[in-house]
Amino acid sequence: MVLAAATSKGVATHGAIVERAIGLVRKQGLESLSIGSVAQAATMSKSGVFAHFGSREDMQLAVLDAVAEDFSQRVLAPAFRQPRGLKRLRAIVSNWMEWAHDGCPMIAATIEYDDRPGVIRDRVVYWQRRLREALARAVELAVEAGELRADIDPEQVAFELFGIVLVLHHDSHLFGATDAIARATRAFDRLFASHAN
Amino acid sequence: MVLAAATSKGVATHGAIVERAIGLVRKQGLESLSIGSVAQAATMSKSGVFAHFGSREDMQLAVLDAVAEDFSQRVLAPAFRQPRGLKRLRAIVSNWMEWAHDGCPMIAATIEYDDRPGVIRDRVVYWQRRLREALARAVELAVEAGELRADIDPEQVAFELFGIVLVLHHDSHLFGATDAIARATRAFDRLFASHAN
Repeated sequence: MVLAAATSKGVATHGAIVERAIGLVRKQGLESLSIGSVAQAATMSKSGVFAHFGSREDMQLAVLDAVAEDFSQRVLAPAFRQPRGLKRLRAIVSNWMEWAHDGCPMIAATIEYDDRPGVIRDRVVYWQRRLREALARAVELAVEAGELRADIDPEQVAFELFGIVLVLHHDSHLFGATDAIARATRAFDRLFASHAN
Repeated sequence: MVLAAATSKGVATHGAIVERAIGLVRKQGLESLSIGSVAQAATMSKSGVFAHFGSREDMQLAVLDAVAEDFSQRVLAPAFRQPRGLKRLRAIVSNWMEWAHDGCPMIAATIEYDDRPGVIRDRVVYWQRRLREALARAVELAVEAGELRADIDPEQVAFELFGIVLVLHHDSHLFGATDAIARATRAFDRLFASHAN
């Protein structure tokens, strides 16, 4: 970071470079990301990009962290302003549907790295576990609020919520399905209804 | 194929080469598949592999078709020996869970190619649509057998079935989750129960 600060005058900021990198990852995946391709996308020198990240792997990790942070800001944070319970849970899935419909680099990275041990895979696992825990916690709060039944398994509900988002992402991007959000909404409604108090 | 037959004496058969290619795709994805890497895996010359497929793209398409054929043989065909209705539908999802737990190259290809127009993407879309239609048809037959309610939307049910398999695939491979099949089974049971007649 000290190095980055020393060389950043007049060139793209760290955040702006990461934004360009995310754009490339959306098109080509995380594995094909290179210092060279990011330098080209950010119209700066390879050594300029290198000064910000030190290595291709560190740049890939920075992309994953930035995506997770963006998810947190766009999906979770606005929902956390809703009261605990079903209202908050519905806000999460509603924001999450928009996010998945726009395409999620983390879902793509999951498929790319699920069979490749290493720090990238570890980071994907870390963020995906954090998300699953946040979902299970939101379900628990809806149980505590008396809106979902006390005998449900929050991790099971979180598992099923995740599946609905994955098929929404799949159908939106592979089929270009315009009804995927409507279908996912019906699936969420049925899931919540079958667990309602 | 004439060319292949003329040069295949003593070298791997078309099917055996495709098998090796599928093995590589499972590890590295469809996009990184090359004539050279397949030749190395099959311990034959590049020109020998080239004689079988003509181009890298044709080899990638042959891999997708072989995966779809394998899916059909291992997941659908055994289920079709069950009577129409819920019994057949449950056989499909049971075989499918085993398949997804072992890893599905088609799901991986979906993520790799969903934003890359071209013949590979078209083929993935083709097979995924065929599968979705087969699922919706199996649901329809369960409606006709009087086991699922007449007012359900078979495409919606197929959409939700697909989501459950996607999260099973995700958790098995990313988290190494040993309870993913049990969780998916509970999700299927809940789905069928909420649509039962």
